[in-house]
Amino acid sequence: MKPQIKRTFSNFFFEYETPRQVLVRNKRVAVVCRIIQMGVLAYIIGWVFMYEKGYQIVDIAISSIFTKMKGVSFTNISEKERIWDAADYVFPEQGDSSFVVMTNYIATVGQKQDKCPELPDGKNKCTSDAHCDEGKYKRMGNGHMTGRCINDTSTCEIYSWCPVEDDRKIPDPPVLLTAENYTLFIKNSITFRQFNVVRSNLVESVNQSYINTCLYHPKTDPLCPIFRLGDIVERSGLSFSEIARVGGAIGVLIDWDCNLDLSIRHCKPKYEFYGLYGTGKNEDKEEKPSLGYNFRYAKYYVENEVEKRTLMKVFGVRIDIIVHGRAGKFDIIPTLTAIGSGVGIFGVATVVCDMLLLYLVSKRDFYKNMKFKHTEIEEEKPALSQSKTERDLPKE
Amino acid sequence: MKPQIKRTFSNFFFEYETPRQVLVRNKRVAVVCRIIQMGVLAYIIGWVFMYEKGYQIVDIAISSIFTKMKGVSFTNISEKERIWDAADYVFPEQGDSSFVVMTNYIATVGQKQDKCPELPDGKNKCTSDAHCDEGKYKRMGNGHMTGRCINDTSTCEIYSWCPVEDDRKIPDPPVLLTAENYTLFIKNSITFRQFNVVRSNLVESVNQSYINTCLYHPKTDPLCPIFRLGDIVERSGLSFSEIARVGGAIGVLIDWDCNLDLSIRHCKPKYEFYGLYGTGKNEDKEEKPSLGYNFRYAKYYVENEVEKRTLMKVFGVRIDIIVHGRAGKFDIIPTLTAIGSGVGIFGVATVVCDMLLLYLVSKRDFYKNMKFKHTEIEEEKPALSQSKTERDLPKE
Amino acid sequence: MKPQIKRTFSNFFFEYETPRQVLVRNKRVAVVCRIIQMGVLAYIIGWVFMYEKGYQIVDIAISSIFTKMKGVSFTNISEKERIWDAADYVFPEQGDSSFVVMTNYIATVGQKQDKCPELPDGKNKCTSDAHCDEGKYKRMGNGHMTGRCINDTSTCEIYSWCPVEDDRKIPDPPVLLTAENYTLFIKNSITFRQFNVVRSNLVESVNQSYINTCLYHPKTDPLCPIFRLGDIVERSGLSFSEIARVGGAIGVLIDWDCNLDLSIRHCKPKYEFYGLYGTGKNEDKEEKPSLGYNFRYAKYYVENEVEKRTLMKVFGVRIDIIVHGRAGKFDIIPTLTAIGSGVGIFGVATVVCDMLLLYLVSKRDFYKNMKFKHTEIEEEKPALSQSKTERDLPKE
Repeated sequence: MKPQIKRTFSNFFFEYETPRQVLVRNKRVAVVCRIIQMGVLAYIIGWVFMYEKGYQIVDIAISSIFTKMKGVSFTNISEKERIWDAADYVFPEQGDSSFVVMTNYIATVGQKQDKCPELPDGKNKCTSDAHCDEGKYKRMGNGHMTGRCINDTSTCEIYSWCPVEDDRKIPDPPVLLTAENYTLFIKNSITFRQFNVVRSNLVESVNQSYINTCLYHPKTDPLCPIFRLGDIVERSGLSFSEIARVGGAIGVLIDWDCNLDLSIRHCKPKYEFYGLYGTGKNEDKEEKPSLGYNFRYAKYYVENEVEKRTLMKVFGVRIDIIVHGRAGKFDIIPTLTAIGSGVGIFGVATVVCDMLLLYLVSKRDFYKNMKFKHTEIEEEKPALSQSKTERDLPKE
Repeated sequence: MKPQIKRTFSNFFFEYETPRQVLVRNKRVAVVCRIIQMGVLAYIIGWVFMYEKGYQIVDIAISSIFTKMKGVSFTNISEKERIWDAADYVFPEQGDSSFVVMTNYIATVGQKQDKCPELPDGKNKCTSDAHCDEGKYKRMGNGHMTGRCINDTSTCEIYSWCPVEDDRKIPDPPVLLTAENYTLFIKNSITFRQFNVVRSNLVESVNQSYINTCLYHPKTDPLCPIFRLGDIVERSGLSFSEIARVGGAIGVLIDWDCNLDLSIRHCKPKYEFYGLYGTGKNEDKEEKPSLGYNFRYAKYYVENEVEKRTLMKVFGVRIDIIVHGRAGKFDIIPTLTAIGSGVGIFGVATVVCDMLLLYLVSKRDFYKNMKFKHTEIEEEKPALSQSKTERDLPKE
Repeated sequence: MKPQIKRTFSNFFFEYETPRQVLVRNKRVAVVCRIIQMGVLAYIIGWVFMYEKGYQIVDIAISSIFTKMKGVSFTNISEKERIWDAADYVFPEQGDSSFVVMTNYIATVGQKQDKCPELPDGKNKCTSDAHCDEGKYKRMGNGHMTGRCINDTSTCEIYSWCPVEDDRKIPDPPVLLTAENYTLFIKNSITFRQFNVVRSNLVESVNQSYINTCLYHPKTDPLCPIFRLGDIVERSGLSFSEIARVGGAIGVLIDWDCNLDLSIRHCKPKYEFYGLYGTGKNEDKEEKPSLGYNFRYAKYYVENEVEKRTLMKVFGVRIDIIVHGRAGKFDIIPTLTAIGSGVGIFGVATVVCDMLLLYLVSKRDFYKNMKFKHTEIEEEKPALSQSKTERDLPKE
């Protein structure tokens, strides 16, 4: 046995098999075939490697955002002058990536727990006490019904924070229309953990003195991290005056597409703006339900030992900052996988060419004979078959 | 040299090589082989292409969420009637994707900076002043110890917001048990940037009149964006009364799995609910630490020139809305990669069949001779070998 | 026609083609070739399968986080003792994954709507009324200019919340330096939807009694979910005293890398800390713009029927908790894709070996003749060519 193992082993190591090929001298087939193969090669090199960078591994960034609004608004409502600064109009105050800038509001001052009629906005009509089930709550209502129908307003009496907020008329023009001139400062830090790279949107060319004066503009100042609120809204394709009145949501996308095979200095953010939902400029309003953006909050206080609150219905621009960070870097695994797949597709090209050769060319039988060798009738006449195939075997 | 280059060039373009094959007439091997090949083909077509949609590129959605709670609760605590609306029970108020609906609370009214004994909850016992290091703070304590041990309560005296909150007994039943009937409205907008597609969960069939009346139900109203809080909790497999008492967190998953090769109208959200952590219905409570969900917040005010606060320990349902958006669309790259891999696996099938043929079949030596040609003893007897191999060469 | 179809069919099923190969007995080429092939095999098995786990499908976790700060600080500012607890120093209060712990502040008490001079911080200088356009607002200013230049301060008079906040001097040492000893409790729940696995960072070995006493330490307590704030900052490579003074942001990364082919018990979180932006320990301060982290918020109240507010400029540690969850599990598709690609790369090895054999070896012409068969001059002398190729064909 031993010598045989040795032989097998030496055969394996010292002999190498390579497929036998037929060189087919047929211009038409050859040219078609070469074109197909070159297409495959061009596709692999051009598209997979150069365009899609198939030789890179990709990491998605972990990111962190800090925002700060600046700017003041001045209002003069019924002879009462008032100034609004960031602490007054930003919710929440701590600089999150998602926040609301108040541009309009309906304030209901001095609400207290009491009985009062429901708002006559058409959704809560009643004509008799029978329509107002005591203790029940209507989906569109503001409190628990006491069981009485008030004649003056033709609505049920409710137990609620009274008086009920009247939001039938939204102030127009919006109270804080000058919000347009507020500025938003965005600090964004991203981390590509796989590559151990940390990067900030305050890149090399953005220094303190530049920040003090710059304002983002896609052409002239594409890296300035300070944005005018009006610009953000307009660039997202919405109308600021509409948004300011009924509210709306804007997405600010910070897009990092970094090729870490190049210098880190080329890894820069790109800012994009788009309307998320809200009053479109040209869209049909009837079609889109639930336009606008608003929320309510309450400030509580005690007056003459009675707990009261000021209810604010706030309309505003909600800004959602979204980071889309992606970095690629050369790596051997995706490179080999791409090459492997490429060779596989090369195989497809060969199959296509063979089809051409064996089924469409006029001399197909000739080529078939060249390509294939039959091990025929070995069952019936083994001797003969043996002798035939002997021809190809080297004698020993 | 020139004509030779020309020849090489023309050879390359007008000649095409294709592997020579043996056609093996062996039923057993052939059938096994065809079955393997067909399996591979079925796998590639059926699984990779049809089921996994390997011909598509995939994009993950960027999403934005806006939420709004509606509903009121009525409480009657020690003869004090009170109504609670969304501005009272939602934290934070601005409609984020993650928020808390208060269902229970412990209010400690009128806390001021003072000295008072620590809560006798068993964690802060003392028997003499020696146990109460002045100026030190205990991990489970509420303030800085003054160095005295109070006999009445057997706890250290502390400098703190006094009186100390007593949270040993959680109100049962929860104060705002009717929170079950609150409704949650979710507006979700997703963007597939790679495909330039924007989509909202208010799809075509969801119009304003439908929203005014509908309520989500997985069978009858799977697209209604309005959810009853009690339903959300129950569908996540938790018990509302338990959750309402000690708090808990619920994940609401909005799942978009869109095939953009079809009409955009088929790209619809699916809502799922699951308990994140909290009191499970049947789980052993001893095993799971830190059940429940609560946080504290304070309302500050000045009374008789002393700063005071009302400390609220809020128990509630925390809702985390998570969007999982994924869209696929036909693209040539993944298609070719899938085909390439498929051809590679076809190669594996051939290798398996060859193994069968060359090692397991009885006439293996015969097939070996058919398949392989040896370039033997070329070192010892080059002439002879030459003559032998000449046979296969066309004469020139 | 029918018998022919039958024959084609039987041919397809009972005949199987396998490529004819030359076994080349050339030690140098064979050894080089085997080494290449073995390298490819080792790469596929070792790297793709064992290291990169190419046989697994991967799912990214959906996660939910709840946080709770504990600890009190004691301050004594101008003889006014004060205690601070979590309800006082955490923003927002409801336990989000991103929050701020106040460590320093500048309070401006009793601001009201009035006229007052701008802060003389060098950015808002004026020498005459001409520099102060009435009704205008300067980017670095705090209100609308009234048109007067105040001599005392050499700054414009503004209509604003007065007096204007003076943030020229940040308290040093920070007011709440003892914030270092606060503890942060993190509850993290992750869901791998594809595998239907839910997991919490309170793993099997973390029970209630352990939580009551433990403190995170990377070596001794790597699974304890309670972290000392000072430790978090120091481990991120920043200096707590600096961060506490001007503020800064820290990322806490919870890294789940789970192999679900093993027991679920091995699926454990790993905590990492890194500074996001902020005062680095050794970095040159001039280079990095916009260091620190701060925000403003206001507490409103009414005094003698005048609305007033206390403006707080809060400096603090912002904690961003980020979850990076990834789980792999065996699946047939990626396994087959990896094998397919591997076979493709095997093909590359064969191509390389053939190059070697046909272009570099001295007897290359001999090997060329062995490998290739020509279908020559079939155009000019079809008869002859026919007779030549007949040799390889089995007679019928």
